[in-house]
Amino acid sequence: MAAVKLIGSPISPFVLRTMIALSLKKVEYELLPEKLGEKSELLLKSNPVYKKIPVLIHHDRPICESAVIVEYIDQVWPESGYGAILPADAYHRALHRFWTFYVDDKLFPSLVAIGKAETEEAKAEAVEQFRAGLRLLEEAFVKLSEGKAFFGGDQVGFLDVMLGCFVVWIEAMEEVLSLELLEEATMPALHGWVVSFRAHEAVKEVMPESGKVVEFFKMIRAMRMKAAADAAN
Amino acid sequence: MAAVKLIGSPISPFVLRTMIALSLKKVEYELLPEKLGEKSELLLKSNPVYKKIPVLIHHDRPICESAVIVEYIDQVWPESGYGAILPADAYHRALHRFWTFYVDDKLFPSLVAIGKAETEEAKAEAVEQFRAGLRLLEEAFVKLSEGKAFFGGDQVGFLDVMLGCFVVWIEAMEEVLSLELLEEATMPALHGWVVSFRAHEAVKEVMPESGKVVEFFKMIRAMRMKAAADAAN
Repeated sequence: MAAVKLIGSPISPFVLRTMIALSLKKVEYELLPEKLGEKSELLLKSNPVYKKIPVLIHHDRPICESAVIVEYIDQVWPESGYGAILPADAYHRALHRFWTFYVDDKLFPSLVAIGKAETEEAKAEAVEQFRAGLRLLEEAFVKLSEGKAFFGGDQVGFLDVMLGCFVVWIEAMEEVLSLELLEEATMPALHGWVVSFRAHEAVKEVMPESGKVVEFFKMIRAMRMKAAADAAN
Repeated sequence: MAAVKLIGSPISPFVLRTMIALSLKKVEYELLPEKLGEKSELLLKSNPVYKKIPVLIHHDRPICESAVIVEYIDQVWPESGYGAILPADAYHRALHRFWTFYVDDKLFPSLVAIGKAETEEAKAEAVEQFRAGLRLLEEAFVKLSEGKAFFGGDQVGFLDVMLGCFVVWIEAMEEVLSLELLEEATMPALHGWVVSFRAHEAVKEVMPESGKVVEFFKMIRAMRMKAAADAAN
């Protein structure tokens, strides 16, 4: 039996975070995917409070919540693979955690709102909110990266992982909805960051294929539209 | 000029978290209270994203979000005062962080909902949600404390700080609304914990007086009721 297991699959950006972290640390693990719309016995037992993926199981003990899991991985395997994920400096660490909080609290909900918008007006509003959030992260990137490739400087750091998990979803939504979310003109630094992030060995290994994310996004959109149409009849 | 400043006042449970942490570490600092309903220039400049208290300013650099601040304090002053706040062990650390996430994500909103409930039915529902949350924390306490006084074992730990900041508010709401929220019969361990937590030297030093919290809660309730009555006319 593997000492490290992960419940979930990389199509979930929250699971992807933990997969990138494990990949950065070169930790071997067994991936236990959940079926869409179902919850396994193991998931219900391992995360009885939220019943959500990802759950990391290490020596039979479950750890839940993606940010908590990534911090755990960084502490348990501090020196392995590409090294530390959290910056060593307390102030930089605080900034990475603050912006991660912002990503989960504001940025991700506005990304979801774009996908769920039922009118052009609602979509335009959600897009503007999302772009405003990214512009804040553009500033944060300039400050934190100090001219280097990542939020973590020369290496992929905590905020790179916590924001980077959405890159392939942002691109899929741009394609399906014919939008430009990560505008090159107003966010040149983040644009460069996406290229560096995607090119990183540890990220490439686990990032889901764009085509699969596009298909998945189309499928959940179709399901939502059908549910709305059924409700209206 | 003080090297450490804190914007906020202990009537805010989120500010109180950071004050308990500073008190545990015996760090001297200057407290810069905000006036109710106003936002100082310093606050707007220091936390432009959320414009909220608390903000810790250390060597002129602002750190925002209570959980981020408490982790920062623990890293910067690891050995001072009563020692570490975060448990050393990665798994225990993950559990403290997970339950802190739960407290902010679910427990605190249900506490707010009790205060805001406009019907007896809505209040009863919010009370039941809040109690259900506390019962989960009762179980977590038994597991984490291992028969000792605190979530952190023999010493006040991260989750003690992050949950303990609400104790005086829970008591004030019990008094004003004639409710029992932290039921002794179903939550004996948490009941004992409250006594130990309140008796801790570092906590006593910064905890706001019960009478003041009761008055403050009555005042914001009166303001809300007046606003609702004005809106109805």
